[in-house]
Amino acid sequence: MATIRDERELIAPTVDRAFLDIVTEALDDGDHDRLRELVEPLHAADMADLIALLPSDERAVFVQALGGDFDPEVLAELDEAVRDDVVDHLPARDLAAAVSQLETYDAVYVLEDLDEDKRQEVLGGLRAEERVAVEEALAYPEDSAGRLMRRELVAVPQFWTVGQTIDSLRSRDDLPDEFHEIFVVDPRYHLVGTVALGQLLRSGRDVLMQDILEEDQRNIKVTTDQEEVAYLFKQYNLMSAAVTDGEGRLAGVITIDEVVDVITEEADEDMLALGGVSDGDVNESALTVTRARLPWLMVNLLTAVLSASVIGLFEKSIEKLVALAVLMPIVASMGGNAGTQTMTVTVRALASRDLTASNAWRVVRKEVLANLMNGVVLATFSGSFVGFWFRDWVLGAVIASALLFNLCVAGLFGALIPLGFKRLNIDPAVASGVFLTTVTDVCGFMGFLGLAAWIIL
Amino acid sequence: MATIRDERELIAPTVDRAFLDIVTEALDDGDHDRLRELVEPLHAADMADLIALLPSDERAVFVQALGGDFDPEVLAELDEAVRDDVVDHLPARDLAAAVSQLETYDAVYVLEDLDEDKRQEVLGGLRAEERVAVEEALAYPEDSAGRLMRRELVAVPQFWTVGQTIDSLRSRDDLPDEFHEIFVVDPRYHLVGTVALGQLLRSGRDVLMQDILEEDQRNIKVTTDQEEVAYLFKQYNLMSAAVTDGEGRLAGVITIDEVVDVITEEADEDMLALGGVSDGDVNESALTVTRARLPWLMVNLLTAVLSASVIGLFEKSIEKLVALAVLMPIVASMGGNAGTQTMTVTVRALASRDLTASNAWRVVRKEVLANLMNGVVLATFSGSFVGFWFRDWVLGAVIASALLFNLCVAGLFGALIPLGFKRLNIDPAVASGVFLTTVTDVCGFMGFLGLAAWIIL
Repeated sequence: MATIRDERELIAPTVDRAFLDIVTEALDDGDHDRLRELVEPLHAADMADLIALLPSDERAVFVQALGGDFDPEVLAELDEAVRDDVVDHLPARDLAAAVSQLETYDAVYVLEDLDEDKRQEVLGGLRAEERVAVEEALAYPEDSAGRLMRRELVAVPQFWTVGQTIDSLRSRDDLPDEFHEIFVVDPRYHLVGTVALGQLLRSGRDVLMQDILEEDQRNIKVTTDQEEVAYLFKQYNLMSAAVTDGEGRLAGVITIDEVVDVITEEADEDMLALGGVSDGDVNESALTVTRARLPWLMVNLLTAVLSASVIGLFEKSIEKLVALAVLMPIVASMGGNAGTQTMTVTVRALASRDLTASNAWRVVRKEVLANLMNGVVLATFSGSFVGFWFRDWVLGAVIASALLFNLCVAGLFGALIPLGFKRLNIDPAVASGVFLTTVTDVCGFMGFLGLAAWIIL
Repeated sequence: MATIRDERELIAPTVDRAFLDIVTEALDDGDHDRLRELVEPLHAADMADLIALLPSDERAVFVQALGGDFDPEVLAELDEAVRDDVVDHLPARDLAAAVSQLETYDAVYVLEDLDEDKRQEVLGGLRAEERVAVEEALAYPEDSAGRLMRRELVAVPQFWTVGQTIDSLRSRDDLPDEFHEIFVVDPRYHLVGTVALGQLLRSGRDVLMQDILEEDQRNIKVTTDQEEVAYLFKQYNLMSAAVTDGEGRLAGVITIDEVVDVITEEADEDMLALGGVSDGDVNESALTVTRARLPWLMVNLLTAVLSASVIGLFEKSIEKLVALAVLMPIVASMGGNAGTQTMTVTVRALASRDLTASNAWRVVRKEVLANLMNGVVLATFSGSFVGFWFRDWVLGAVIASALLFNLCVAGLFGALIPLGFKRLNIDPAVASGVFLTTVTDVCGFMGFLGLAAWIIL
């Protein structure tokens, strides 16, 4: 309907610094009428962005200032760290009122990380059937299809006609806000197939639902992991998919808009893990960030000490020829960079399932070959350069050989380490980087200093 | 319809190594009947995976062996490198026959990187209206909404009723295979609004379309960049969105399944760029891979030489105290690791638009603070360790101070460098890494060696 709200949304303000300043001013002045007026035209997703931009301690204050005008949908749009700031500080009664207006899927997101006492208090404030639905969803493992699915769906018996189905849609008042297909079920509520709304609309009224249904081949269960769900949606271009329970009964439906969140989340996790970060929300506090990153830095300190002790083995050589100390980081760092290239490609290909047991050896061979070729170019450049710089062509040959060796090592281990972790069911994005740089540092220093000690000294 | 094909799909083979071996055998034996029988049950997406697993020179051979049984949809599912292997080697006549069965959007994907002569030849083999549609789409810039949209859509005048609309859907034979909404247009074909199929089905037959439409607020034009499109879909949980041309007329529709590909592509690009790779398809040849990665490695070689020349300034100090050479990589590498953490989080937050001008300074301050705190812990550990190892507590104090300094530098530049590139409209994922490690290497070596030269020697 072309309501006033829709028209307002057409001229919704952008959540930029100027708008943020005006909102903050109204909030600081305690001018709640002005505040409501300012944020009323915002879409829930933009309102969530606005709340994230407020300082951590003002977020709950802001939501309370809006009172009954606060749109509960906004809670479902908040990033985790921001959501926690808000829901931890809202009274249980207000939370229950908000949650009762949300779909089960969104209600679960709002409540999943709340401490147990408060969650029980909020659940106690819901109507019995809402409470059961939320508790049931919370009982599924995190990251499972059961958490991801919506229970609100439309199912009809297989012997119905298109006309019966359309008439029943017109007369029902419990339809979900949005639905994109009709599920066809047998008397035991087992899924027989799916009829897309477009298919329903192009078929005659007398046609039987069982004659136009598509059988479902994707077999997503409530316990299926969300990563697998995301893979199936991407691979088969699904818009939605049915989820069945342990007994094969239709339990819910997952639509692609939720899967988009999963895809983004998984891609972000991989990217951050490769950067040595376990959680990267810009909305987290400095202390949370610090604690999350320290373990990885400690592991890196250990590997750096290991590399240092390798250098320590060659103290005598360095004393005789200080140029070795000057040049050794080049060999180590080029190995690290080339290895990171191979590792990143491998991790990404594993995540997208472009890389499997079927082509693993071909990819490893290709990576070693590519690094070997790049190694020849880089070794030639660095060898010639060092020869000129130090007027020492033997030293040039030594660095060239060490560099070439380390690049091959980088290609081999850059591919093998993620493949190995995948085989061991350890997330390759998280663990590969540390091991790889350890290998390229040790091989770089050992190769260069060892060769120099043997040939020159 | 529950056809034989659907039932076959239920028992479609998995594309694993065993299946690949059987297929390769049939292909090598020239047993095309067996080959067709083997791959017939495969979904187009799985068939595309199978083709990607074949050696580069067998891909086109495989497609030709299937002849008329080859499903043209598979072409649209191939990764770029694989698609090129196939289409470059298929005769233009076969390509035209295949492309004519695809939607415009998919046809464009198949033809966009073909060399100009062959593309013209293929286009010449299409029916006039197909040819015009594909040429029009190809005229839009790459990565624009015009390339992404489908032209096949359902539009009705605003004065129609729900009943009229449904009746017309039943009688039309040119409906798109899939559609999820009805567009309502005025006599000039300007978009008035959208009616979701679910909304259409729940409304009475006498209701006017203009009374149930949702006005469109997203304003996607044919020239809008696909990154912006992906942002709008993610931010507002869209399932589909109308695209308008320069005159505001309805030009096409983008559905979320295409946007999912864009989201995945953009996330992959960022992840690969952070790993120093411009393109990371595992299906590319070793030579392509080598050439794509070399420029980045050459830049890294330059920065490594720069770091080496910094070390060169302190040759005398290292000669006096070789322990400096042993320990200096620790300071540089810890700075690099901590800086990479900050940089990864910053690049990711910029990409997801969680980080904007409104909260940039807060994020920079927080990153410096977090790195300072981690720096204190790491400096304490490494200082004590070095004190014990070398029985030299002054040296321990020097490495601790240099490490703390370099971690603060890492936090500051890890955040500032991507923010600066973003400001200059340069992709922060691509350029930040090289600059950051240069800064942390130079500050690490300079800080540690300089401080040691000043205090100890």
